[in-house]
Amino acid sequence: MTDEWLHTWIGSSEADRITVAGRDLPAEIMGRLSLTELAYLLITRREATPGERRILDAVLVSLADHGLTPSALAARFTYTGAPEAIQASVAAGLLGAGSVFLGPAGDTAQFLAEALGERPDHVDEAELRVVAERAVAARRAAGQRVPGLGHPVHREEDPRTPRLYELAEEEGLLGPHLRLLRAVADANEEATGRHLPINGAGAAGAALADVGVPPGSVRGFVLIGRTAGLVAHLAEEAEHPIGMPLWLEVEQRAGGTGDHD
Amino acid sequence: MTDEWLHTWIGSSEADRITVAGRDLPAEIMGRLSLTELAYLLITRREATPGERRILDAVLVSLADHGLTPSALAARFTYTGAPEAIQASVAAGLLGAGSVFLGPAGDTAQFLAEALGERPDHVDEAELRVVAERAVAARRAAGQRVPGLGHPVHREEDPRTPRLYELAEEEGLLGPHLRLLRAVADANEEATGRHLPINGAGAAGAALADVGVPPGSVRGFVLIGRTAGLVAHLAEEAEHPIGMPLWLEVEQRAGGTGDHD
Amino acid sequence: MTDEWLHTWIGSSEADRITVAGRDLPAEIMGRLSLTELAYLLITRREATPGERRILDAVLVSLADHGLTPSALAARFTYTGAPEAIQASVAAGLLGAGSVFLGPAGDTAQFLAEALGERPDHVDEAELRVVAERAVAARRAAGQRVPGLGHPVHREEDPRTPRLYELAEEEGLLGPHLRLLRAVADANEEATGRHLPINGAGAAGAALADVGVPPGSVRGFVLIGRTAGLVAHLAEEAEHPIGMPLWLEVEQRAGGTGDHD
Amino acid sequence: MTDEWLHTWIGSSEADRITVAGRDLPAEIMGRLSLTELAYLLITRREATPGERRILDAVLVSLADHGLTPSALAARFTYTGAPEAIQASVAAGLLGAGSVFLGPAGDTAQFLAEALGERPDHVDEAELRVVAERAVAARRAAGQRVPGLGHPVHREEDPRTPRLYELAEEEGLLGPHLRLLRAVADANEEATGRHLPINGAGAAGAALADVGVPPGSVRGFVLIGRTAGLVAHLAEEAEHPIGMPLWLEVEQRAGGTGDHD
Repeated sequence: MTDEWLHTWIGSSEADRITVAGRDLPAEIMGRLSLTELAYLLITRREATPGERRILDAVLVSLADHGLTPSALAARFTYTGAPEAIQASVAAGLLGAGSVFLGPAGDTAQFLAEALGERPDHVDEAELRVVAERAVAARRAAGQRVPGLGHPVHREEDPRTPRLYELAEEEGLLGPHLRLLRAVADANEEATGRHLPINGAGAAGAALADVGVPPGSVRGFVLIGRTAGLVAHLAEEAEHPIGMPLWLEVEQRAGGTGDHD
Repeated sequence: MTDEWLHTWIGSSEADRITVAGRDLPAEIMGRLSLTELAYLLITRREATPGERRILDAVLVSLADHGLTPSALAARFTYTGAPEAIQASVAAGLLGAGSVFLGPAGDTAQFLAEALGERPDHVDEAELRVVAERAVAARRAAGQRVPGLGHPVHREEDPRTPRLYELAEEEGLLGPHLRLLRAVADANEEATGRHLPINGAGAAGAALADVGVPPGSVRGFVLIGRTAGLVAHLAEEAEHPIGMPLWLEVEQRAGGTGDHD
Repeated sequence: MTDEWLHTWIGSSEADRITVAGRDLPAEIMGRLSLTELAYLLITRREATPGERRILDAVLVSLADHGLTPSALAARFTYTGAPEAIQASVAAGLLGAGSVFLGPAGDTAQFLAEALGERPDHVDEAELRVVAERAVAARRAAGQRVPGLGHPVHREEDPRTPRLYELAEEEGLLGPHLRLLRAVADANEEATGRHLPINGAGAAGAALADVGVPPGSVRGFVLIGRTAGLVAHLAEEAEHPIGMPLWLEVEQRAGGTGDHD
Repeated sequence: MTDEWLHTWIGSSEADRITVAGRDLPAEIMGRLSLTELAYLLITRREATPGERRILDAVLVSLADHGLTPSALAARFTYTGAPEAIQASVAAGLLGAGSVFLGPAGDTAQFLAEALGERPDHVDEAELRVVAERAVAARRAAGQRVPGLGHPVHREEDPRTPRLYELAEEEGLLGPHLRLLRAVADANEEATGRHLPINGAGAAGAALADVGVPPGSVRGFVLIGRTAGLVAHLAEEAEHPIGMPLWLEVEQRAGGTGDHD
């Protein structure tokens, strides 16, 4: 007998059978779906079209890595202490994907979805402009930042953003979230007199919402891409360690007593 | 001036440019490579062929999910306490990918690679048989288990295993690691008189090694697939919680004092 | 030369000397301070009085364990998969200390501190009553829960709460945060017509604020206690496993296909 | 009805009662036991004597912090990205407590316990000498390092070590593990011709084993101390951030293209 509340649609295994997403894993998924396609299927319960798949992959690779970020450094320092438990280093790297880095992808998706409300996909530019102005004003009145805008390194333009818009256009998937985000950036600049470009995380969140990833799942979805980047950093760290020498340098500069030599 | 030791090949970002794997991220990766392809490129520093890509994806989807595993349950229980920090729940799920679950993929890849030594890819079956017998005997003499064999649920055959071999054959990528693993299973059965099937993690590790993932990176690589499964579990947990009711049931059964009603 | 911004007061080490909290670790801390006292010193930069130390320990032991909670179960399930990396299991258990469990200690401390503002320690009951009513009304107007009240298991009274108040009274440390929390519980009951007892986490947060732990550090401070509980769960799990049998039971009940027998 | 296998001795909660370590939490633990004492009780199932308590606290404070270690840096970098989820930063810091840092405390305890076997507490120095020589020889023959010896910063002497021995002597708790570790250091120096001092983690592991912490629990036990240090680092990071400026410096030095200015 089944406990209904204890059931999961994601997957199940029996002695001679593994079912994932309601499909037979070996026969219907292995050799047929890419990891990106399976992730989309698991979260939306439908298969991605080729165009959607291209956007999904573009988003995931755009967030996979960004160099020696705090997230990559946390993973590498964890590896310094526990090289035998690689999963712990990957986990440490993911743990920093919060409100400051990567998390904004999900925050942007949710902000845009709430602002759009029940509006249809073919909402026109004039209405988006009004929606954007109201949403920006509401954030400013509440003393909150507008998500999806600004980046500490890419101050003029985040190079990932125009590329994501271009791809969405090519695939006929430039939907209301991406369009609203552009209007939000304009409205914010008008209201503040200051240019804040759409950042890569924000554009990623809007693009995922436009291809059907539920806004509440965006923050989780982007972690799949980041895991790939972290695994690569750790493979490199095993060959060319940064954690140990960087630690010793920091320790010495922090100490400042002259006793180190 | 650059500090050589502080350099990473994985990625870097400047005000107007993001480089990943030595390529311009927006122009050369976004819209061109899938996440799986980027992960392979980052770890091996070369692009996957279509056949390799198919094996890579087959491995990643085969390990993405397996139902309400300890890993999925740890992620869901973490979500019960901290639904606002989804990255922490994903991390908790990954942390259990150690010596018992998922970790065996990497352990198997390393065990097979060490046993093969410098043998060429076209090593013949007779020699593999000898290699397998020696490797199994060495493990048994040291009182250690042979990695990649046996599964608590799939006792006769792990349904992922024959499918992975089939796909590798189709793509002309049935290499020495997958072939040796088959010989190892036979040698183990002969030595112990007991049938232990090749498990899905073991076959996955061998298949990754055959397409060029360095054995030391296999344990990290498979985490990319698992992240996708965990993200899906958490999306479902948000809609249909298992953590909270399962906790309350466990607490009540554990208490056993009858005071709960 | 020292980099000022790279300096930490917490600790430093040199070839022949380790300094923690500005003191010589072996001579001035080891054998003299308990862990609780050191934690307090590190966070407040002054030593605890005997009364403060008693409250600190009472809070930490009160939050160390609560049975087979989601946090303990996440730690145990992680151990099932990775018994060789105990730190990963402890970390998995801590990751669930968010907005639902344990986190409310810090949320309560911050809520009370904000409501108190610059009021002196000897603020009188009448004024606390007014502060409480306003704070409760503001939360309700914003559609937010009042932190520190209510518990899914201890519906009438959380047994830790009266004990913490009693100890604070005994030590002359029943300060404005604990007193305000009592007024908040009353004001909430009056406003809603529903009894929600002060929960143990809320009382803990108020007590820590009263002995001088900065409200922003309370959420971190209580994790020290929880780590002790998790370490004990994992020592027990190594002897009497719950993770593996509970997983197999869940898997079977979730499957529901009848194929398991 | 109780499920026996689902029972835990650690703790349980009912509507009006919380039991920890078989005792009523509010009446018998809060206000009576320190966190250190509760941790010991939970793991050994007996209360510590005053002398044992002093050693336990000396060990925990000795391992709480060591400056800007890889562990502290991982915690701080995680905070940079996710300041709203402090538990994730603490967890990230703990994740590096593996085979290189902190883990050696447990490895040393287990190595010494195995070498001692069933020998009585009053084993004499001559026998310890023989045991040490054999244990060191066995490690060297297997190509493994002897745990508990050597430190990258404290090359001559780890200042925590003589202090722990002194305290153990003062309390009459200088037992066979601490004594054997001294013999091991001598035997290693004789065998290799090279001085490797007993490190603080090794001495800590031996001291914990001597006061009755099961060697298998030592690796978990020391995490309680480290949590205190990490919480303090994060409180400081909130006031004086190191993560963000260190990241930007690393990024610039790593880039090396001259485009950063």
